[in-house]
Amino acid sequence: MDASPLEIARYLNERETTSRVWDLKLVDAGPGWATVRMPAKHDMLNGHGMLHGALIFAVADTAFAYACNSRNLASVAFQASVVFLAPVMEGDVLEAHAEETAGQGRSSVYAVTVINQRGEAVAAFQGISRTRGEPVIKFNNED
Amino acid sequence: MDASPLEIARYLNERETTSRVWDLKLVDAGPGWATVRMPAKHDMLNGHGMLHGALIFAVADTAFAYACNSRNLASVAFQASVVFLAPVMEGDVLEAHAEETAGQGRSSVYAVTVINQRGEAVAAFQGISRTRGEPVIKFNNED
Amino acid sequence: MDASPLEIARYLNERETTSRVWDLKLVDAGPGWATVRMPAKHDMLNGHGMLHGALIFAVADTAFAYACNSRNLASVAFQASVVFLAPVMEGDVLEAHAEETAGQGRSSVYAVTVINQRGEAVAAFQGISRTRGEPVIKFNNED
Amino acid sequence: MDASPLEIARYLNERETTSRVWDLKLVDAGPGWATVRMPAKHDMLNGHGMLHGALIFAVADTAFAYACNSRNLASVAFQASVVFLAPVMEGDVLEAHAEETAGQGRSSVYAVTVINQRGEAVAAFQGISRTRGEPVIKFNNED
Repeated sequence: MDASPLEIARYLNERETTSRVWDLKLVDAGPGWATVRMPAKHDMLNGHGMLHGALIFAVADTAFAYACNSRNLASVAFQASVVFLAPVMEGDVLEAHAEETAGQGRSSVYAVTVINQRGEAVAAFQGISRTRGEPVIKFNNED
Repeated sequence: MDASPLEIARYLNERETTSRVWDLKLVDAGPGWATVRMPAKHDMLNGHGMLHGALIFAVADTAFAYACNSRNLASVAFQASVVFLAPVMEGDVLEAHAEETAGQGRSSVYAVTVINQRGEAVAAFQGISRTRGEPVIKFNNED
Repeated sequence: MDASPLEIARYLNERETTSRVWDLKLVDAGPGWATVRMPAKHDMLNGHGMLHGALIFAVADTAFAYACNSRNLASVAFQASVVFLAPVMEGDVLEAHAEETAGQGRSSVYAVTVINQRGEAVAAFQGISRTRGEPVIKFNNED
Repeated sequence: MDASPLEIARYLNERETTSRVWDLKLVDAGPGWATVRMPAKHDMLNGHGMLHGALIFAVADTAFAYACNSRNLASVAFQASVVFLAPVMEGDVLEAHAEETAGQGRSSVYAVTVINQRGEAVAAFQGISRTRGEPVIKFNNED
């Protein structure tokens, strides 16, 4: 029996040292999709006093990571494009939802949208993953 | 009464001089989405003998243009990202489907997938449009 | 003796059926770079009466193709990002210059800028190529 | 007298709460360019045990921020594209160098390359900034 998308996302979320630093929580995951949530905290601000763009990227990229590993084939990001649609302020809470839009061979493409607590779009992201072939979670069924 | 997405897409398709050169046909359109079709012809090949990437981009970009103008607010592409997933050969027929994924203020984001006649994904595209404010089709209802 | 960047760019330019349709000329090429020129013609206009974005992409993508094949390792575009900075009108002449910015393994990254006849930037482009390994031009020195 | 690129980059680096969390140091800056350095630390790892892609993005994005604000016109990132060329491991040290490639009106485009301590390219990044008009550092020369 293979690991479920939710088990894989939990496994990655627990192993990432960044999730603890960012308070990044898994909301839900299924085959080819995932949703995560992250608060904009005081130690995440850029020189203009707004959430650093790299942390808007971070929440989108993490949803993308859980989605592209959800079928238990270890995958890494190869390329990503992000558009910043609205500034994010300290105290805001971001939610990112990633969904597969296309795949061919070892490459898959995901669209991710990031909204704030008022449901406003703050970023749109497109990511390309490459599968390396081995599973994320290995089961030792023989044991 | 305002122009429908299908009327706007037909209007753009007729005015574009490129549609005739590329044999690019409108398949269907609705609010925030559009589907188009284009054959890979002999005068569209790159130096390796495959469909030139710019013409894979062209079919995606045109679906994006019809989708982002579909609410009758004249809009132009500001940025686009494209991933080429599989080669396209002379004689193949491409279909691109564009859908809005996010919008904020004057900017909107669209995801476009391009498939061939066997339903295989050949490209994924993300485009950002900017609205200039005026309508695509002006009605002179007073006349 | 291996083919020079200029010989490879000429070879690709002659073989492309698109170069004739677009009047796209090779200006110059060297190891990891290339410059091309293309006029904005009447059969290249979008539904708003400006040069179709796909043809601004085309001139950048072609400079990128000549640059990434310049070391005689057949390479194809895998991903590209483009920003449209200013509209291009019928009669304008575009020049695109591509230069390698990074490479690792089979992947290389190129930055391309597109200017008009007044030297104004009309687009910026980043492309990623993948090398397939075989040469673009094979020499049969034994013959 | 206006603030110098180095003064502006120092000002942003000191105000960012992220620089302290990431140990991100300014190396140097000039008009339209900047170089920064960041170590890959234990609390920066993803679920596969490698540096999280968002932190590779972070070092590139910060070099881009210092470069695009270097002329003392407050600017923010609008869009960014990143390619991940090689994995980064705990203990590696990254250096990002950003340079302007094109500009038109309120938009400017920057190319950023990220290398590790062995000089290997680990990422290439293209960013678009939008200027809001006011200065980053305001001088009250009248006082």
